[in-house]
Amino acid sequence: MLELYIGNKNYSSWSLRAWLVLKTAAIPFYEHMVFFDDFQKQSPFKQKILALSSVGKVPILKHKDLIITDSLAICEYLAECYPDRLLWPKDPAQRAYARSITAEMHSGFNVFRQYFPMNIEAELGELGAKYCQDNAALQQELDRMQAIWSSRPTRDGFLCGPQFGIADAFYAPMVLRCLSYAVPLSEDAQAYVQQVLTVPALQQWIKEAKQEHRFVEINEPYRRRI
Amino acid sequence: MLELYIGNKNYSSWSLRAWLVLKTAAIPFYEHMVFFDDFQKQSPFKQKILALSSVGKVPILKHKDLIITDSLAICEYLAECYPDRLLWPKDPAQRAYARSITAEMHSGFNVFRQYFPMNIEAELGELGAKYCQDNAALQQELDRMQAIWSSRPTRDGFLCGPQFGIADAFYAPMVLRCLSYAVPLSEDAQAYVQQVLTVPALQQWIKEAKQEHRFVEINEPYRRRI
Ligand SMILES: N[C@@H](CCC(=O)N[C@@H](CS)C(=O)NCC(=O)O)C(=O)O
Ligand SMILES: N[C@@H](CCC(=O)N[C@@H](CS)C(=O)NCC(=O)O)C(=O)O
Repeated sequence: MLELYIGNKNYSSWSLRAWLVLKTAAIPFYEHMVFFDDFQKQSPFKQKILALSSVGKVPILKHKDLIITDSLAICEYLAECYPDRLLWPKDPAQRAYARSITAEMHSGFNVFRQYFPMNIEAELGELGAKYCQDNAALQQELDRMQAIWSSRPTRDGFLCGPQFGIADAFYAPMVLRCLSYAVPLSEDAQAYVQQVLTVPALQQWIKEAKQEHRFVEINEPYRRRI
Repeated sequence: MLELYIGNKNYSSWSLRAWLVLKTAAIPFYEHMVFFDDFQKQSPFKQKILALSSVGKVPILKHKDLIITDSLAICEYLAECYPDRLLWPKDPAQRAYARSITAEMHSGFNVFRQYFPMNIEAELGELGAKYCQDNAALQQELDRMQAIWSSRPTRDGFLCGPQFGIADAFYAPMVLRCLSYAVPLSEDAQAYVQQVLTVPALQQWIKEAKQEHRFVEINEPYRRRI
């Protein structure tokens, strides 16, 4: 059986992507939660994860002896192992487009990540409009993301067609960030947000994130533990 | 015929990756150079690139009507179109490893990128040791990169075996940064640097970069135009 090592559901945006792809494709897997800490050298998180791979980060997929250590590499591996699940579009041109926007997310949107770290249970709605207004680079990334969300083939569908796929899993953490920080979105981008929120696997993740209640200092630039 | 749009050979690390994969695999393509400028909204670079795709960045691969807009997505497309070139390792486990380190590079090493932007013709050897000593996060990324470089199957080979592949192309800009800034490397990492420098396609890129002589302000945090 596949085993997926993930971090806190409230914070771990990279874990969410791999987990969502497994869940939405109904691929059975065993889930190992490794809670975040301060990520110092000998911390419990680091000890546990470094025993699996020198990369020292989650998510990690274990398949028998094989260890895969990056969310995109995990998704490519799953797409190869389960071709019938159509995790990427079947058509080569559509697949190339799906990979373009997925890899763009993987390597970019760094200002957005920095200002709006994933934090599902937080209610920081006062920050979204303010920061986007004040920061041109942030607004530029938001514009680009909305352009991608608005380019989906049909308004009631996902990024690359009627089926939720890897590309959507990669943008799902961004959807959640937009909600926590009340980032101002176009009508079309809002329609995509609503579409993604209908996915039962994502609803499950959100519910479990909200029940977690584990405050981790380094993931909380805005909230203070009381 | 395939067409690849790239930026300045001296600066464009993302362009280099796609270009190297095409060259080392002996895949014929037409090369369009779009020189960098200030990347403002109506700049010549932006006008030319935005006419191809709303992403507005290089590299871009054009194949008839199809536009692919990210270096990793381009490489995945080439791997699919030319399976005999073995751009990824043939063995599924080795392929998963190659994708793990490639995607790790795609999404990470941001401190290294920031401190040491690719600048092939520059001689900034005084900065490497200094910055790594002063900045723990930078040194941590360097350690991780050296661990990857030292994990290759044989000392006289590439990251995933005897053949230069996509993973090597993704680390090639890092090799060039280490040279420009004289980043202190372990003996084993130095051996990898030397190995990569034997690749004729990379030698060609370096030569052309050094002949370019186009100073672009935003890519030069350290040098002053005279
Ligand atoms: N490229 C990796 C990034 C993974 C990553 O940064 N994971 C974070 C948690 S969401 C982590 O484990 N951080 C631990 C650390 O930075 O020490 C991926 O896509 O999986
Ligand atoms: N994820 C993209 C990143 C491409 C990228 O950032 N390209 C830079 C040049 S090396 C660019 O075109 N920048 C223009 C801009 O930022 O406006 C890829 O892998 O191709």
